[in-house]
Amino acid sequence: MKNFSQWFHDILEEAELMDARYPIKGMSVWLPRGFQIRKYALKALQELLDEDHDEVLFPMLIPESELAKEAIHVKGFEEEVYWVTQGGKRELNEQLALRPTSETSMYPMFSLWVRSHMDLPIKVYQTVNTFRYETKHTRPLIRVREITTFNETHTVHATKEEAEEEVKTGIEIYKQFFDELAIPYSICRRPEWDKFPGSDYTMAFDMIMPDGKTLQIGTVHNLGTTFAKTFDITFENDEGEHEYAYQTCYGLSDRVIAALIAAHGDEKGLKLPPVVAPEQVVIIPIIFKEKEDIVLDFTNKLEQLLKSNGIRTKQDKRDIRAGKKYYEWEQRGLPIRIEVGPRDIENKTIVVNRRDTGEKEFVDYDETTIVEYIKNLLDDISENMRNEANKFQEEKTYPVEKLEQVKKTINKKGGIITCNWCGQTDCGKDMEEKFDIDILGTQDADVSGECINCGNPAQSKVLISKTY
Amino acid sequence: MKNFSQWFHDILEEAELMDARYPIKGMSVWLPRGFQIRKYALKALQELLDEDHDEVLFPMLIPESELAKEAIHVKGFEEEVYWVTQGGKRELNEQLALRPTSETSMYPMFSLWVRSHMDLPIKVYQTVNTFRYETKHTRPLIRVREITTFNETHTVHATKEEAEEEVKTGIEIYKQFFDELAIPYSICRRPEWDKFPGSDYTMAFDMIMPDGKTLQIGTVHNLGTTFAKTFDITFENDEGEHEYAYQTCYGLSDRVIAALIAAHGDEKGLKLPPVVAPEQVVIIPIIFKEKEDIVLDFTNKLEQLLKSNGIRTKQDKRDIRAGKKYYEWEQRGLPIRIEVGPRDIENKTIVVNRRDTGEKEFVDYDETTIVEYIKNLLDDISENMRNEANKFQEEKTYPVEKLEQVKKTINKKGGIITCNWCGQTDCGKDMEEKFDIDILGTQDADVSGECINCGNPAQSKVLISKTY
Repeated sequence: MKNFSQWFHDILEEAELMDARYPIKGMSVWLPRGFQIRKYALKALQELLDEDHDEVLFPMLIPESELAKEAIHVKGFEEEVYWVTQGGKRELNEQLALRPTSETSMYPMFSLWVRSHMDLPIKVYQTVNTFRYETKHTRPLIRVREITTFNETHTVHATKEEAEEEVKTGIEIYKQFFDELAIPYSICRRPEWDKFPGSDYTMAFDMIMPDGKTLQIGTVHNLGTTFAKTFDITFENDEGEHEYAYQTCYGLSDRVIAALIAAHGDEKGLKLPPVVAPEQVVIIPIIFKEKEDIVLDFTNKLEQLLKSNGIRTKQDKRDIRAGKKYYEWEQRGLPIRIEVGPRDIENKTIVVNRRDTGEKEFVDYDETTIVEYIKNLLDDISENMRNEANKFQEEKTYPVEKLEQVKKTINKKGGIITCNWCGQTDCGKDMEEKFDIDILGTQDADVSGECINCGNPAQSKVLISKTY
Repeated sequence: MKNFSQWFHDILEEAELMDARYPIKGMSVWLPRGFQIRKYALKALQELLDEDHDEVLFPMLIPESELAKEAIHVKGFEEEVYWVTQGGKRELNEQLALRPTSETSMYPMFSLWVRSHMDLPIKVYQTVNTFRYETKHTRPLIRVREITTFNETHTVHATKEEAEEEVKTGIEIYKQFFDELAIPYSICRRPEWDKFPGSDYTMAFDMIMPDGKTLQIGTVHNLGTTFAKTFDITFENDEGEHEYAYQTCYGLSDRVIAALIAAHGDEKGLKLPPVVAPEQVVIIPIIFKEKEDIVLDFTNKLEQLLKSNGIRTKQDKRDIRAGKKYYEWEQRGLPIRIEVGPRDIENKTIVVNRRDTGEKEFVDYDETTIVEYIKNLLDDISENMRNEANKFQEEKTYPVEKLEQVKKTINKKGGIITCNWCGQTDCGKDMEEKFDIDILGTQDADVSGECINCGNPAQSKVLISKTY
């Protein structure tokens, strides 16, 4: 892909995912096909979350007094909060924030809910719209002013250990979710100066985009007791003493859909993993005048057979050239295309095309085995797409040992470079400035030797890239 | 129910549906159980809409210039629109409205989407949060400042006839939806002065609440070409001429959940129709020390059997008195409670309790028939609840022939009264003021005789009530 930025812009329109012409900068419309993909992605996520978390829904507006309570937190957001100041023709007594994230809407309520350790743990999540007044250049799904899809989980625990355990659970859920969607990732611990405002630490997922820059696609935060102290979330322990609760939160956004699009697309258009494809199979009847009934009789039965076995199937009977149909469905990224003409029916074969590899196969048609064949093929496609995407992320991750290679490697090859680092904020910020790169964060690893930048003893491996 | 208002307030907390203590008036938190009920209700609605409508998602903010374009429309909303005036620390160039409803966010885009009659019809819906700056007394789900659940359908057509047809479709969908949820309703055409601002006419669904007042639970609007003219939604017809498109929109809100709660609750608490119950069956093992294994072995198998057949089932094994469990699950409104003790297992029976009638039955237990028995019972419960609710609505609807009975009947009995009416705005408003009632609207009927108020020839039957 020569120009990813342009490709990404075009594909949203061509594959009928979003309309970016809404008359407010940074806000777009989800079109029916895009909405379906979003729906199936959310479904996969929620199935994972539902195992041990309850879905809730909190109000969208936050009183200024609540938002302002946690000083470090508000400092992280104050430049980009939208404020409601007026109701009807009256000025409001207290201005209200459009939630930039929901800690300050949820935690005053948690304070009411938690009385004793019997009320713990709390594990809830919601999928909502959130808002950021972005002053930078906006881009649909990636840098927006309305995040239309913000899935955020918030938990409260009696002990530090349980909160640590929940961080691991959150990471595990996101790994499974991204694996299902065939989205590759690297996980690291964000540096001190880039952690979530108010958290003890932040674990983050980054994907390498086709242009070599990384996109943050998910974060898991250990909040420690900072917010519990601010919002007075305490419980009475077995000894009758009041203790502050330990909290975590983790979230995903519209960026998951951007990652999905970017990880698999090609010059022909979108490539959808079966799990999120609005239609997993499209059937194209090849119709010649005198054989129309025979063909449609066959394809109608096939459509019904696949549908009744839970395979999302569409038959395209439109009266336009077959070639145009192939082009359209390839652009829209459907995993499997089946073509059936009169001669195929005579020969008892169907033609099966895979979008992921472009392979075409003549398959002996047997009603008793075709469903299993298609299901297996969908599984193959999922696995192949996951492997391909992971391979790309691995191949674009470069271990580097000498300082002069840092900037050169990133500028030439993009991707993520890994090297030894001392872990000091001064040294990290120095590198960021010197090389015009971003420190994504650290990974625990047995390191020996010196920090690549300052020469002090290395504490960990660090991930570096240019970021979105 | 002696005091419906207090009962409604209490049930939200007792059945763990919502928490109304959020620090902004008129905005509440959906708790996990409430959220589940909302989810199943939305699912039932979306299945009906999905047959012929596509789901989309439009931005939440609307530029003032768009909101102000349709003068009649904006007049209907200007007193209650929330305005965002600030982003970060800067004042915005143009203030942005929190959508009170989405005509003015959607229709500028429709104008871009519609070029020729080939682009029509458009039939889309979304489920979103909307906002009204209510100055009156607020009440969760009924009169709120954030409508957290606004399901709105918007359609565009080439002809007036198609738009009329879509109004009928919308009414049909809502009828089926309310029937499924066992919510009773009366349908009428709102009077001129109470139609949706900017519409040609409004069809509305009203339910009689336990206190005798009516609650508007759904509306279907024929917009004619008013908005098409304002937002320039035109198409080229077969003759190459530009024509204005015809539009409809229809919507439902959180009030559906309020109606659901109000239609079926009793002194014991909530009563949920099976379609929306988070759990349709709760199994209570009656455990005595030495027989624990026998009982749990049985109830675990029963739980698995019901679950694997698609019946939402919960087993309550908590170590508390059985009586307390009965009380809780009755309060939460679960349709069926099954009790199983050691003696029941010996006798090969289980005890099945219906929440709707309070009936208790000893059922011969047979693994091969129990699933069907429970499914049939759930169907029975659904039907019985629907019949009971409809009966209430019918019994509280009073035909009245003399003017002096209007106020007396409503004050004494509540509900809806029907009578002959001339259809004139002056006369209608005169009645509203004189009797402190609301004209809900008209129903087509063969009427003869005079208007109950002014004595002019009657044009239709009119529905009158006190409203929420």
